[in-house]
Amino acid sequence: MIPFKLTDELVADIEQHIENQKDKELTSFMEEFHYADIAEIIDELNEDNATYLIKLLDSEKTSDVLTEVDDDVREAILNNLSAKEIAEEIDELDTDDAADIIGDLPKEIVQKVISEIEDKEHAKDIVDLLRYPEDSAGGIMAKELVKVYENWTVTKCVGEMRAQAENVTRVHSIYVVDNDEKLKGRLSLKDLLTVSTETYIKEIYISKVDAVKVTEDAEEVAKIMSKYDLEAIPVVDEMGALVGRITIDDIVDVIKEEAEKDYQLAAGISQDVEADDTIWELTRARLPWLILGLFGGVGAAVIMGSFEEIIRDHAILFLFTPLIAAMAGNVGVQSSAIIVQGLANDDLKGSISNRLWKEMLLALLNGLILAAMLLLFTWAWKGNFATALAISTSLVAVIVVAGVIGTFVPLFLNKRDIDPAIATGPFITTSNDIFGILIYFWIAKLILGI
Amino acid sequence: MIPFKLTDELVADIEQHIENQKDKELTSFMEEFHYADIAEIIDELNEDNATYLIKLLDSEKTSDVLTEVDDDVREAILNNLSAKEIAEEIDELDTDDAADIIGDLPKEIVQKVISEIEDKEHAKDIVDLLRYPEDSAGGIMAKELVKVYENWTVTKCVGEMRAQAENVTRVHSIYVVDNDEKLKGRLSLKDLLTVSTETYIKEIYISKVDAVKVTEDAEEVAKIMSKYDLEAIPVVDEMGALVGRITIDDIVDVIKEEAEKDYQLAAGISQDVEADDTIWELTRARLPWLILGLFGGVGAAVIMGSFEEIIRDHAILFLFTPLIAAMAGNVGVQSSAIIVQGLANDDLKGSISNRLWKEMLLALLNGLILAAMLLLFTWAWKGNFATALAISTSLVAVIVVAGVIGTFVPLFLNKRDIDPAIATGPFITTSNDIFGILIYFWIAKLILGI
Repeated sequence: MIPFKLTDELVADIEQHIENQKDKELTSFMEEFHYADIAEIIDELNEDNATYLIKLLDSEKTSDVLTEVDDDVREAILNNLSAKEIAEEIDELDTDDAADIIGDLPKEIVQKVISEIEDKEHAKDIVDLLRYPEDSAGGIMAKELVKVYENWTVTKCVGEMRAQAENVTRVHSIYVVDNDEKLKGRLSLKDLLTVSTETYIKEIYISKVDAVKVTEDAEEVAKIMSKYDLEAIPVVDEMGALVGRITIDDIVDVIKEEAEKDYQLAAGISQDVEADDTIWELTRARLPWLILGLFGGVGAAVIMGSFEEIIRDHAILFLFTPLIAAMAGNVGVQSSAIIVQGLANDDLKGSISNRLWKEMLLALLNGLILAAMLLLFTWAWKGNFATALAISTSLVAVIVVAGVIGTFVPLFLNKRDIDPAIATGPFITTSNDIFGILIYFWIAKLILGI
Repeated sequence: MIPFKLTDELVADIEQHIENQKDKELTSFMEEFHYADIAEIIDELNEDNATYLIKLLDSEKTSDVLTEVDDDVREAILNNLSAKEIAEEIDELDTDDAADIIGDLPKEIVQKVISEIEDKEHAKDIVDLLRYPEDSAGGIMAKELVKVYENWTVTKCVGEMRAQAENVTRVHSIYVVDNDEKLKGRLSLKDLLTVSTETYIKEIYISKVDAVKVTEDAEEVAKIMSKYDLEAIPVVDEMGALVGRITIDDIVDVIKEEAEKDYQLAAGISQDVEADDTIWELTRARLPWLILGLFGGVGAAVIMGSFEEIIRDHAILFLFTPLIAAMAGNVGVQSSAIIVQGLANDDLKGSISNRLWKEMLLALLNGLILAAMLLLFTWAWKGNFATALAISTSLVAVIVVAGVIGTFVPLFLNKRDIDPAIATGPFITTSNDIFGILIYFWIAKLILGI
């Protein structure tokens, strides 16, 4: 497989063709590409060109392309389409993709689009999906599934299944429900084919079936499906009625988004920005964390200012403040990252106090090694053993406290049902900077008897 | 679905049962649990108890449990099993899981285990898989797949398929090969059922089929499968011969591991540690980055030492060095994280110089806002406008340089085929600390005319 590679030349070529309105060349050109590749091309075009190209494609391809383009590009394109045109695209899509696209539109447009959808059953399913929060099982499930009633005979079942399967891209399982739509189990195709055609479904279905509640967190669904290696899972409402199905490709998206969010939080970026976003969007995502860092730095300056009287005789203490702040920050980020990841993977067992003890020992070990190195350097550099010892001893204390804070904060946030990932990065760095410098001067003063 | 919850009580119960050798209770207890849940329990037991429990389970369940337990737990358990016992477990597993387990054993044991495997065809497939690096398509593919020859008739094909399908957990696609095993295409089950039984496969197969090379990076395979929404992809060797198949559940693991690695690197942790690892393992993962940070801090101290002559008259400049270092670090991590993520998602288009310009503008905008806040504070605090202006102006310069370094380094590493993720975290923080403090003192001296 030769992977598709988006080049500047390719984009320039297509822009040229659009400018010259070479529609025939464009359509035959586009036929060769997968819709995911066309989406990448469209992400690079300006609004007018993107709309032009979208209108050229046949409706089935357009709708798939629309599910793959960037959110802001899609918004721009849909703005240039009428409610009827949007409804035609929506008609081609599975309910989950349709709901994702419609969900981003302004409310009054949603109404118009829904009323223009020809397949009324499809429209009803989409409206149903719009009720659920995006990050819940309901928000990622699709209505397309194969469902049979327990009081059907095998003959009836096979006929109905064939009709239903036409609307379902991949049939992973056949679900069995009772007359109240309550999920009872699943059906093995093999059993279906080996029993008499007059057998009732209730006699042959497998009653063991995993399902998730429609209100369940999407992240939790991802954990369950990846832990138990499930390719699809049925979704039930509060009454146990079968309302949808989640497939593993939806879960791949959830896992990727979650990982990106945690990574960006650790790096001090509010979620959901990309390198190609505008300077304004990037500033909005980055500036708040930098302002937090600024406050931390000002706090550190004020603390150091309160020790200013010793600067004449002990200038050297001040030279090591960036080192102290950096080490406090690094240790804090390391220990909080390990806790955040352990919480995300449900890997943490045992009590909080055990964890704190372990981190304290670990930080003490690392701290002693680092302090020994710093002691030798500082002694050699300035020739004053007492000062070198004071600085190194403080470093150990700072590292131990930083490790404990880094371990405690995410555990504490998690207990309070706050996403512990916000604890990593600038949050821990900033608070550890302040504590670190305070502890450093206290201990150094104590040891030097100032 | 009531999710399984591992509790301390449950583990204590099981330990009690093992101690009292209540085998019957244990087996009936274990029957209720999914193998992934049993693996979680076993991860909590000590080596002897874990081995005791493993030996109690029936062979099919044991082998599945072994694929799910932590690497170090598995190593300990396998150490207590004979080559014959290990071979019996391996016999139950798909080739990819079998190769993963065997691959971690010492070489001389691998030989013994392989020779004890009863199904010689299975053994040969496993040996074949052991040749490929773990992070390549060959390293994650399985040998189990349904494959038919183009010169077979439909009758022959259906019979052979049935036999092959017995060894394959989920049949995603039927692949068509020629007599040299070269992948030619895939077969639609519908086409197979609607043509005459004497038709040759070569007349009805679909020649369009995506495949990846066996040497392809596992990460690249994950990107392809998730971009094109594939549930399975065939793997071919250099000659185009079909050698295996990768399914989407393998890809979920690749995506998760990759995300964890990047997250840990950003937090300054060498990959592959967990909160429950020993203090020694955690130290090995964390200490190198801390030593790097220590060098950075020492570098900053030496630079500040060279400006020591101005400490008497301009002590205030020294109070803000932790702030300068923190801001340089934060901005650097933010900009490198965005680039690292863009590279991981293949989202970055356009030239390097454009990116650097954009980051420079962005950093300038953020820098000016932050500097204005700092100017007001410092002026109010110390009442000296010139000094406040000098510090704030330096801050802008430091932020711009930090942003540019943060953008440039990952792009540069990527060009040189080095994983850009190592650029985030302590690496960028440390170098930006040093550059930041140097620039800060230069510019402050210049403005204050010292």
